[in-house]
Amino acid sequence: MSIAIIFNNRKIEDWQEKLSAQLTNTKVEVYPEISNPEDVEFIIAWKPHKGYINEFPNAKVIQSAGAGIDHLLHTKLPEHVKVTRIVDEELKQDMFEHVLACVMISMKNMYKYSKSQENKEWKPVNYQSIKDVTITVLGLGKIGQFVAEKFVNLGFKVKGWSNSEKQIEGVKSFSGELELAEAVNGTDFIVNILPLTNETKGILNKNLFDEFSANTVLINVGRGAHLVDEDLIDALQSNQIKEAYLDVFNEEPLPVDHPFWENDKVFMTPHVASITNTSSVLLQIEDNYYKMKQKAGLTNEVSLEKGY
Amino acid sequence: MSIAIIFNNRKIEDWQEKLSAQLTNTKVEVYPEISNPEDVEFIIAWKPHKGYINEFPNAKVIQSAGAGIDHLLHTKLPEHVKVTRIVDEELKQDMFEHVLACVMISMKNMYKYSKSQENKEWKPVNYQSIKDVTITVLGLGKIGQFVAEKFVNLGFKVKGWSNSEKQIEGVKSFSGELELAEAVNGTDFIVNILPLTNETKGILNKNLFDEFSANTVLINVGRGAHLVDEDLIDALQSNQIKEAYLDVFNEEPLPVDHPFWENDKVFMTPHVASITNTSSVLLQIEDNYYKMKQKAGLTNEVSLEKGY
Repeated sequence: MSIAIIFNNRKIEDWQEKLSAQLTNTKVEVYPEISNPEDVEFIIAWKPHKGYINEFPNAKVIQSAGAGIDHLLHTKLPEHVKVTRIVDEELKQDMFEHVLACVMISMKNMYKYSKSQENKEWKPVNYQSIKDVTITVLGLGKIGQFVAEKFVNLGFKVKGWSNSEKQIEGVKSFSGELELAEAVNGTDFIVNILPLTNETKGILNKNLFDEFSANTVLINVGRGAHLVDEDLIDALQSNQIKEAYLDVFNEEPLPVDHPFWENDKVFMTPHVASITNTSSVLLQIEDNYYKMKQKAGLTNEVSLEKGY
Repeated sequence: MSIAIIFNNRKIEDWQEKLSAQLTNTKVEVYPEISNPEDVEFIIAWKPHKGYINEFPNAKVIQSAGAGIDHLLHTKLPEHVKVTRIVDEELKQDMFEHVLACVMISMKNMYKYSKSQENKEWKPVNYQSIKDVTITVLGLGKIGQFVAEKFVNLGFKVKGWSNSEKQIEGVKSFSGELELAEAVNGTDFIVNILPLTNETKGILNKNLFDEFSANTVLINVGRGAHLVDEDLIDALQSNQIKEAYLDVFNEEPLPVDHPFWENDKVFMTPHVASITNTSSVLLQIEDNYYKMKQKAGLTNEVSLEKGY
C-alpha cells in the first residue's frame, strides 16, 4: 500500500517528507518515481497528466491538492474511485481577503492615485462608501458563502447566485439559470467563486456582460475557464463594464502576448488569491488516508456528477 | 445676528444656500462679503486667515467645518469664544475604509503586481493574512477608537496609543510618552489618527522610526504636520521602515518638487481619506447655532487647552 503524489505546474515543497514522517509504514512517492504502481491506493494530485489513473490499477482515492477538482477530470475515472478535495478554512479567509483588497482598491480609486503620483498630479476624486456598494457573489459553495457573509458583516449590500437555492443571512440569494440576470443586475461588484463544471465553463461571457451596468466591476477568483477573454475585452472597450480584477486565467502563466497585460482596465494578479496552507492541508490528507484504510466515509468527497 | 462662513482652500459648495434655507431669519454670508461684521455671532471656518477673529467683535462660537481645529489656532482667541468641531459618523467610517484599503494593498502586494503587470511579469509573492497582522492606531479619540474597533472585528491584532489611558475591547492600549515606543514596537502597521496639538506636532520623527521594525508600514491620515518629512525619507532609504501611505502633507497640494512624488516606497493620496459629508455636517452646525442662541451647551465643543 502506498501513496503517489502527482503534481504538475506546482511545487511539491516538503509534502513527501512531511507525509512520510506522519504516515509511518506507508511509502510516499512522487511521480514519475513510483517504485511499484500497483501498490498505489491513494493519489494526491494537482493537474495530473492525461491518462494518469490508468497507470495505477489499484487506486481507490484521488485527493485533489486544492479546492477544485476540475483539473482531475480530463481522464475518465473508474466508478469505484473516490475523489476528494481540500476545504481549507484559511483558504476561504484568504480568498475573502484578496477580494476585499480588490474591492477597496476600486472603491477608493487607489490605482488611479498611483497613476496620479507617477504624473505628479494632485487630483482628488470621489470615492464610494461601503454602505452604498452592492456585491454579487457568483457561487455560494463553502468559499462563496463565507465570502458573502464576511462582506455582509462589513456593511456591504450582498447578493448571491448559485446553482441550487441557498439561504444565507443578510444575502439576497438567487439560483438557477433564469435568475442569473437578476443577480448581476444593478450591482457594483461581481465576484466569481463558482466551481468549474460543464455548466459554468464560459459563464462570464457577452450574454452575462449585457446584464452588467456600466459601473460594474468584475472580480474573477474562480477559474480562468469561467471567462471568455475576448468578450471581456469587448465589454471593457465599449464601456459596458467598468474594470476587471483577474487572478485566474485560461492559460497560466498568462502568455506575454495576451492583450490583458496591456489593458488599462484589467488589473492582474498571478493566481495568488489563496495559496493552500500546507499544514492544514496535510492534516486533511492524512485524515482521508486513514479513513480510506478503515473503509470509512471520506472528508470532502466530491460528487462527480455535480462536479463539486 | 448673522453667520459668517470663512473658507480657505476649500469649496463652499452650497453651504450658504442650504443653511439660509434652514435658518430662516438669519443672514448667512461668505467671507469677505460680510455686510455687517458686528452682527456676526457664529463663524463657520476652515483654515481662516490670520487675525480673522479680530474682525468680528461679537463672535461667540467658531465652528470648525471639519474634525480638526488646529487650523483655527494661529490666532489667539478671546476667552469667551467657544470652539466646536464636526464629529461625523460617516467620516469615521470613511477613515476606516481608506485605512483598510491601504492595509489590504500592502498585505496583498497589490502595487507590486501592478508593476509586474506593466513589465508583463508573472511573479507570485507571499502575502500576509489578517490573523497574523498587528495594527497600532496612534490616537484613540472618536475616530481612532472607531477605526481600532473595526480592525478588531475583522480579526486583526490591534494596539492603540493615546495621550490619556483608554479601555477599548480587544485593543491593547498604551498611553503617555513613556509607552509610545512599546505601542509601535513589533507591529506591522502604524496608523496615525492623532489630533494635531503642540505635543503631537512632528511626533512621526526619527526617534519614533527608530522603534519601528523593518517590516513596519506607516499610514498617515492625521495631519501633515505630524510627520517630519526628511526623517521618513531617511528611514525608508535605510530600510528602517518598509513603506508609507500618506494622505496628508505639510503643504497641500504637495509641491511638485517634493521628493515624496518620486519615492517608490511612498504611496500618496490627495487628502481624500474622508471627505466631510455635507448633509450630516450641516445638521450639526444648525444644531449648534440653535444651542448658541438658547445659551445651551454646544455639541462637540473643544477644550482649547488640550487641543481636541
